Amino acid sequence: MSNRYCVIMAGGIGSRFWPLSKEEKPKQFIDIFGTGRTFIQQTFERFNAFIPAENFIIVTNRQHRELVLEQLPEISESQILCEPVRRNTAPCIAYAAYRIATIDPFATMIVTPSDHIVTNQHQFEKIVQDSLDFAEKNDVLMTIGIHPNRPETGYGYIQVSDEKRENGVCRVKTFTEKPNVDTARAFLESGEFFWNSGIFIWSVKSIIKAMSAFIPDVATAFSRGTDVYNTPAEQLFIDSIYPECDNISIDYGVMEHARNVYVCCGDFGWSDVGTWGSLYMHAEKDGDGNACLTEHVVAVHTTDSVIKIPDGKKAVVEGLEGYIVADSGDALLICRKEREQNIRDYVEKLR
Amino acid sequence: MSNRYCVIMAGGIGSRFWPLSKEEKPKQFIDIFGTGRTFIQQTFERFNAFIPAENFIIVTNRQHRELVLEQLPEISESQILCEPVRRNTAPCIAYAAYRIATIDPFATMIVTPSDHIVTNQHQFEKIVQDSLDFAEKNDVLMTIGIHPNRPETGYGYIQVSDEKRENGVCRVKTFTEKPNVDTARAFLESGEFFWNSGIFIWSVKSIIKAMSAFIPDVATAFSRGTDVYNTPAEQLFIDSIYPECDNISIDYGVMEHARNVYVCCGDFGWSDVGTWGSLYMHAEKDGDGNACLTEHVVAVHTTDSVIKIPDGKKAVVEGLEGYIVADSGDALLICRKEREQNIRDYVEKLR
Repeated sequence: MSNRYCVIMAGGIGSRFWPLSKEEKPKQFIDIFGTGRTFIQQTFERFNAFIPAENFIIVTNRQHRELVLEQLPEISESQILCEPVRRNTAPCIAYAAYRIATIDPFATMIVTPSDHIVTNQHQFEKIVQDSLDFAEKNDVLMTIGIHPNRPETGYGYIQVSDEKRENGVCRVKTFTEKPNVDTARAFLESGEFFWNSGIFIWSVKSIIKAMSAFIPDVATAFSRGTDVYNTPAEQLFIDSIYPECDNISIDYGVMEHARNVYVCCGDFGWSDVGTWGSLYMHAEKDGDGNACLTEHVVAVHTTDSVIKIPDGKKAVVEGLEGYIVADSGDALLICRKEREQNIRDYVEKLR
Repeated sequence: MSNRYCVIMAGGIGSRFWPLSKEEKPKQFIDIFGTGRTFIQQTFERFNAFIPAENFIIVTNRQHRELVLEQLPEISESQILCEPVRRNTAPCIAYAAYRIATIDPFATMIVTPSDHIVTNQHQFEKIVQDSLDFAEKNDVLMTIGIHPNRPETGYGYIQVSDEKRENGVCRVKTFTEKPNVDTARAFLESGEFFWNSGIFIWSVKSIIKAMSAFIPDVATAFSRGTDVYNTPAEQLFIDSIYPECDNISIDYGVMEHARNVYVCCGDFGWSDVGTWGSLYMHAEKDGDGNACLTEHVVAVHTTDSVIKIPDGKKAVVEGLEGYIVADSGDALLICRKEREQNIRDYVEKLR
């Protein structure tokens, strides 16, 4: 039996992808590129290549439990952890870590978002395996970094020190939030900065130790459940402690304070597909630079636009340059790509 | 019993209103303004104010017979004439005229399109009544004209002679097809030209006499059905002669040649709502000049646009100036208003 586990964090609501992503069916549960695989299915397959299905844990909001079961038939009900409320990544990871520790205190775990894309599986797998090897042998907190190819302002960055370890593993000097474009350019030129993928790898021992040191309230709360994890009493316990947890990210709560943080960097066609712009970047485009993610679209005098309509629907789009056109059936978005950061506000006005 | 009849021509397919108007449900059967009344229902009500329901004849394509019955419950099945193929207005009017003549050879008939709007019912009714009075007493072909308020290039024009008759009835000198904008301006300035509404009024005797003179093939074909109209054999007869009829308009076939053509002109808020532009013109607009024909639309940095989405659907529209956005549920159109004459071609590309 493998003691390598994969925790997929699927509690997000993907509000930047309205109207395709909605509270009832957030981004990770949709097949935005029309590949026949939703984001969470792609994520599962990516790790299932080297992690057995029974070693997956999916953390999600209670209302999306059925969606997980439906989309990942390989997963049993007991592998789905239900968050009663949204509390960012630290409580989510603490819950998964303590849950796994009760079964296998010597486990190593991967923690991954559920809504990213990776185009080079082979490269990706190598980086993750190297990180697992390193995390199994050392008391470290590993993160996966990506060689930046542009001064992206939508990502967090990781600065590495000169100190190199085996297999390209580097010690992390600092984590940096989303920079402005000038800073991002300087990061890119320095060669010291990598994109932070939000994928983490560590032994349950190491992450529990780090959480106990840096976010003791969260660690203590989840440590009290050791007797109830994997029993019928688990959900009641979680429902009682979750709302009281700090709403805090693992980056802010732990990674930025710990001294044993390492990164393994690669270049494997990664994107968090966090915005329509990044989706556009990764989509196939026609000669006019249009990414028509659906058939039956006639685009005339239209360039550099991304168009997604329901399967079977027809569309004529004329005279748009640099737009997002997204139709989910019950909602329609037409917006200039450059204004996509305002979509959330516009949707707010609909209420 | 009244011997005034109203013939509603409802055989059009409204292809310029894609995607709201489609072959399965053309423009006359839709409620584009969200008033709770489709165009054909509005047309029926407009004339039903002074023509009894049993004196209506609806001519439509066979595939839309059920739609007529559904939308006009006041109409019985025998009042619906089914065209097996589309053959423009002359055969449609010949069919209706001969059909009415077998019941009432002294009848007067109004012939009207099914998809226009009239905002001043009172004015409209007066003009039509005056025309009926005139047509009952004289062997004339009457048409209803409209005082033009702009150099519209989308309408046909009627030039009148100085010779005035009672109640503002004028003799028609010429019919003019859609003019270019310079010609339209000259027409407007001259004061001699009126818009041609496509609404005609005449006795069945006069129209049958005129058709016999100017389109004898069509007249002869329908005259042979005198024995079968209003019998179970009628449809079979029509199905056999209709496909052989010339595809010709009443304007081109009769009105442009007859010497006894008169017009009664008014100003009653008329539009043929033939294009998205004319729909926009007649729709209620907000402070930014947007005609949102549906609720649940948030328009940002958007001006002079017309937006129609299905009831209950939500939309965010950003950064559009002078556009048509029309969503029918199974098809979506986004197009600059100035390009609307190309919509037919764009839709053709979808096939």
